[in-house]
Amino acid sequence: MPDLVISIDAMGGDHGPAVVVPAVARAVKQGLDARFLLHGDERVLKPALAKLPTLAGRVEIRHTDKVIGADEKPAQAMRRGKGASMWNAVEAVKTGEAAACVSAGNTGALMAIAKLILRMSADMDRPALVASWPTLRGRTAVLDVGANISADAQRLVEFAILGAAFHHAVHGSARATVGLLNVGSEDEKGHEEVREAHRLLRTMALDLDYRGFVEGDDIPMGTVDVVVTDAFTGNVALKTGEGLARYFLARLRATFTSGPFARLGAIIASAALRRMAEQFDPSSINAAPFLGLNGIVVKTHGGADVRGFATAIRLAADLAASDFVAQIDRNLRTMTAAMPNEAAQDNAVPDDAAPNQASGVGERTKA
Amino acid sequence: MPDLVISIDAMGGDHGPAVVVPAVARAVKQGLDARFLLHGDERVLKPALAKLPTLAGRVEIRHTDKVIGADEKPAQAMRRGKGASMWNAVEAVKTGEAAACVSAGNTGALMAIAKLILRMSADMDRPALVASWPTLRGRTAVLDVGANISADAQRLVEFAILGAAFHHAVHGSARATVGLLNVGSEDEKGHEEVREAHRLLRTMALDLDYRGFVEGDDIPMGTVDVVVTDAFTGNVALKTGEGLARYFLARLRATFTSGPFARLGAIIASAALRRMAEQFDPSSINAAPFLGLNGIVVKTHGGADVRGFATAIRLAADLAASDFVAQIDRNLRTMTAAMPNEAAQDNAVPDDAAPNQASGVGERTKA
Repeated sequence: MPDLVISIDAMGGDHGPAVVVPAVARAVKQGLDARFLLHGDERVLKPALAKLPTLAGRVEIRHTDKVIGADEKPAQAMRRGKGASMWNAVEAVKTGEAAACVSAGNTGALMAIAKLILRMSADMDRPALVASWPTLRGRTAVLDVGANISADAQRLVEFAILGAAFHHAVHGSARATVGLLNVGSEDEKGHEEVREAHRLLRTMALDLDYRGFVEGDDIPMGTVDVVVTDAFTGNVALKTGEGLARYFLARLRATFTSGPFARLGAIIASAALRRMAEQFDPSSINAAPFLGLNGIVVKTHGGADVRGFATAIRLAADLAASDFVAQIDRNLRTMTAAMPNEAAQDNAVPDDAAPNQASGVGERTKA
Repeated sequence: MPDLVISIDAMGGDHGPAVVVPAVARAVKQGLDARFLLHGDERVLKPALAKLPTLAGRVEIRHTDKVIGADEKPAQAMRRGKGASMWNAVEAVKTGEAAACVSAGNTGALMAIAKLILRMSADMDRPALVASWPTLRGRTAVLDVGANISADAQRLVEFAILGAAFHHAVHGSARATVGLLNVGSEDEKGHEEVREAHRLLRTMALDLDYRGFVEGDDIPMGTVDVVVTDAFTGNVALKTGEGLARYFLARLRATFTSGPFARLGAIIASAALRRMAEQFDPSSINAAPFLGLNGIVVKTHGGADVRGFATAIRLAADLAASDFVAQIDRNLRTMTAAMPNEAAQDNAVPDDAAPNQASGVGERTKA
């Protein structure tokens, strides 16, 4: 029996078991040696599994009738979610039964439940989400593209740590190169937060290869493995990229129907064009782990098809098989060990403020 | 004699008169009915003009030996720039001799000199720059992409006003539609600054068509005529778009050399492909006015070729011929008239803070 166990929310997403079960079969067929806990309605899951003999002995159904709806608010999901397929899928990671969890369910609810059950390992409000951009040199991880729409210097350093561990685990970089997104390469460019994070990343002895400021065009060029920014800028860049991919394809279609010769060219080159279009399919970049949790939770988008969900399962397995969690822990410890010096500097100002600040740092170190 | 006069820094940019003089000739050949003041070295300009009889009687050389270098710091340019070709080109707008000015020179120096000579009409630190994105529906103006890397709510409203007037003048929209860049469409999304600007834009009776929040993919889709954001996000989006265009063309080349049929398709469709590639040429989007000044100053990039510089000249002429300045003035007055109510609300908190805040608003109203 394989040692690796993946816990799956079988009821999440637009299609639920109709996509999840064939996706598990696809991942196994592609060579993934793992067992699976499928959380959901056994009246649907059993007959679906019966048709897939390749999964025999690899899948255990964990029955529940309860499902978290696509429109449920995070607070509601936290209060009333206990026992739902999503809740149980995450809890299996907490108890150690599974090494990682995958869900295509309601993002806000999954984030809230994952945070409640697993807790954050970094001092963040909410998990960070990473987008893996296709680039001229491979894949570049851009984060945060989740919910941390503002980020101070320490948060940006945490994103660098999380992103480097992610790239190492998933894309196999030996020691990930990291850049900080800015509007220029000179030290004095950008906001205070970005300049301070730049200073911290240059001086802290973290297990990553910090390369300084990068700009927007460095993302598709693949200049570095990891691009760090707050979720506001990260989301805008990602959405702009998605829109621009759609724009390019629409223009390409228009170009190839602009005249008889172009049309002939399109017919002849159609196979190659289709391959290229697939590179811009958002479903190929929308599987992403929630970073910063004490455990591996991979979210894939609600509309994921079998291929997309299988990608998410393989991503979860890659993370679980790597030293992902250990690398993050090590780097966070290095960071927090370096932070008291920062605090000491801050404390130079008012005497009565010092105890509060010191205890703030203490909490950080514990987190 | 044509009434419209354009003032030109003939020495700015990487190529100086070698590009500027033929660009003026090109603009005239394309039907621009204007006269030109060329500021620069007459020993170079005279022989260049002698070769272009189409320009006879349309061009007046304003001789100066002095030139502002590409590496000169803004502060230095302000202190020592008086009498330089760039300085004189801007001053002709101040004195009313010319309706607009064009320069391919040092951006920081031009911004500082233009601000010093013409002053800001809005309450901004520095002029805003607009990027005209190619979209599926035409052109969308995105601003700021200049130096206002942070922007509070009032600044964002000012960008909306400036962008709407720009789109109306240059792209001919009757009443420009405006969107505020955010990470979602719900009222509670985004930073405080963005949410407050959203509230102001919905309640102020400005002469523009505010459509609410938009996301990154709405830029290339052309959902609205004007997209408003701070220069940090605007620059990242623009650079990401430029990088993605390069990425896309590189992938396209790779696709079209991936096999004999694809290669044949590329040969057949090459003319259409070239047309598309031209749409992503940065020189076609890099001519932009400095917005928010009491006068029209168009900056084009240092490396602009004849076509790029001619585009900048036509842009300056379009702005000068429109009700651009009047529309901005009208909207800014509407905005400042609505602002005291805001201040009154703010003043509800501490009594002793009120006088300062009130005088702050007073300054704003004067600006």
